Amino acid sequence: MDETKRENEYYIGVDFGGKKILSGVFNNKFECIGSTKISTKSYRGVDAVITRIAKCILEAVDECDLNINSVSAIGIGAPGIVDPEKGVVIFAPNLHWKDVPLKQEIENILKVPVVIDNDVNICTLGVYETEFEIKPSSLIGIFIGTGIGGGIIINGKLYSGFNKTAGEIGHIVIDVNGPKCGCGNHGCFEALASRSAIFRNIKQAVKNGEKTILSEILGNELEDLKSGDLRKAIKRGDDLVLRIVKEASGYIGIAVANLINILSPEVVVLGGGVIEALEDKIMPLIIETINKNAFPHTTDNVKIVASKLGDDAGIVGAAILAKNYLKLRDV
Amino acid sequence: MDETKRENEYYIGVDFGGKKILSGVFNNKFECIGSTKISTKSYRGVDAVITRIAKCILEAVDECDLNINSVSAIGIGAPGIVDPEKGVVIFAPNLHWKDVPLKQEIENILKVPVVIDNDVNICTLGVYETEFEIKPSSLIGIFIGTGIGGGIIINGKLYSGFNKTAGEIGHIVIDVNGPKCGCGNHGCFEALASRSAIFRNIKQAVKNGEKTILSEILGNELEDLKSGDLRKAIKRGDDLVLRIVKEASGYIGIAVANLINILSPEVVVLGGGVIEALEDKIMPLIIETINKNAFPHTTDNVKIVASKLGDDAGIVGAAILAKNYLKLRDV
Repeated sequence: MDETKRENEYYIGVDFGGKKILSGVFNNKFECIGSTKISTKSYRGVDAVITRIAKCILEAVDECDLNINSVSAIGIGAPGIVDPEKGVVIFAPNLHWKDVPLKQEIENILKVPVVIDNDVNICTLGVYETEFEIKPSSLIGIFIGTGIGGGIIINGKLYSGFNKTAGEIGHIVIDVNGPKCGCGNHGCFEALASRSAIFRNIKQAVKNGEKTILSEILGNELEDLKSGDLRKAIKRGDDLVLRIVKEASGYIGIAVANLINILSPEVVVLGGGVIEALEDKIMPLIIETINKNAFPHTTDNVKIVASKLGDDAGIVGAAILAKNYLKLRDV
Repeated sequence: MDETKRENEYYIGVDFGGKKILSGVFNNKFECIGSTKISTKSYRGVDAVITRIAKCILEAVDECDLNINSVSAIGIGAPGIVDPEKGVVIFAPNLHWKDVPLKQEIENILKVPVVIDNDVNICTLGVYETEFEIKPSSLIGIFIGTGIGGGIIINGKLYSGFNKTAGEIGHIVIDVNGPKCGCGNHGCFEALASRSAIFRNIKQAVKNGEKTILSEILGNELEDLKSGDLRKAIKRGDDLVLRIVKEASGYIGIAVANLINILSPEVVVLGGGVIEALEDKIMPLIIETINKNAFPHTTDNVKIVASKLGDDAGIVGAAILAKNYLKLRDV
């Protein structure tokens, strides 16, 4: 199909996790012209969640005064291990999903082509397609939020490996004697530098009697702590928060240096809530540690940057995946 | 060129490091029909070493009652960072080499096509081509000797990345508070599980007054300690050596689990002097740790095996590289 015919076509990008489903409607220039967010309610079971994803898509389409028939393709990023070729979510522990044929199910309901992939892979694709005019030969996307995940692009394509699990970088061990991780190991990257790890360390320090501005604002339990609060505290000269964020930056630098030693990427992009909230504070520290730790020559001319996409990386990447999928089908 | 014409053709595989140069002559069935080993003498400078590589090749050819004109192509594995496309050794710290156009230099002397790559990449290629009838989609080769290096094969091809440094797995940090590594960091894989690390730990234990059969045989300084001695000591029930080898196996397992989490390979092959000497003792421990440490589903149906090639992996891989190179040029 030639490009002129595509001018009036729309793509849907869906990003869904254990808590929320976000659908965005994109025009052919990848401008988001409307979006809808609803809760996932995973406790209602697989079928209910699939129905809610379809509902979220239809509401976003309606929000834009469009009809589902104007949608050319739908891309969906799912949390966990995804087989894009088969369209199956193989394993998603947060949702208690196992072998769910998500692509087929949504296609059955909406009668529109659907393509799925792992959510972090999709964020990486979104960053690769929108943030680089000249495409790097290889790129690693590292997303640091409640957990830590990664996506790998080699020769312009997402690389997911034999078991479709490549990029599980949150669970690389960098401190064998470090704190216990949710996965059962000790000293995983995620257990040392995720938002959960940073919050755990701050709460522990407060329990140990250390002082922080945060407990004045939120109380000693620090119940509603958010990434943005860290930024505010550091801005107001909070030594405790600064120290703990610096420690996390050091671990991020070591983990990225490990990845550079292994993969020799052209570009490393850091994203996710922690990076978004603290970019100017932590990126210089991260880059300093990488340059100190990576093996000589491995970082020569390598770009290490923070993503500009923020929370939208998921839906933008998913919409791009949808368009790429359609392009491949047209060949 | 058709295959029948190739029947009488020969390929040379060269493996050279800081101490020795090994050249093997291979027939079209990749049987080694003769080989020569000489010392590198890197202190004599770049030109002298290049002359010695050419000399070593010519001696191996003569050993087989052949003439250099019967050689179709020469493959050379060099230690350090190599750019195979340009034929240049970018950086080889053990040799004090920087930007040496090795391919061109050897071609000038011998008038035979030459192709070069990093030595560990070449060992990985050798293992991939000779040890698997059905080729895996992806493979990581991990070679544990004095140091630790790795090679990565993706979609049947060696992957060396943006700076040609992919596979520098000896310097991934797995214990931030671990012993200092030659690279300046703490707790690198190489500083925890290489032959040097194992020997250092045994010598330290002896200094601390612990008992081992090895000091009875070699004296308390353990000067001439070799990988094979570890095997003998364990066989004779040496608790100290067994404990230190077990510790190293644990670190190897954690490092391999990290690599599986990141790359999701179909096959992991372990080779090098330490694995060769201790295979039956340590492979079960390594595999146990990998299965305990890797993220769920990342190891499903993944093959983790010890290489059978031993010390020959370098020259076999280099000869295969030479033949592959010629095949590409013929297209």
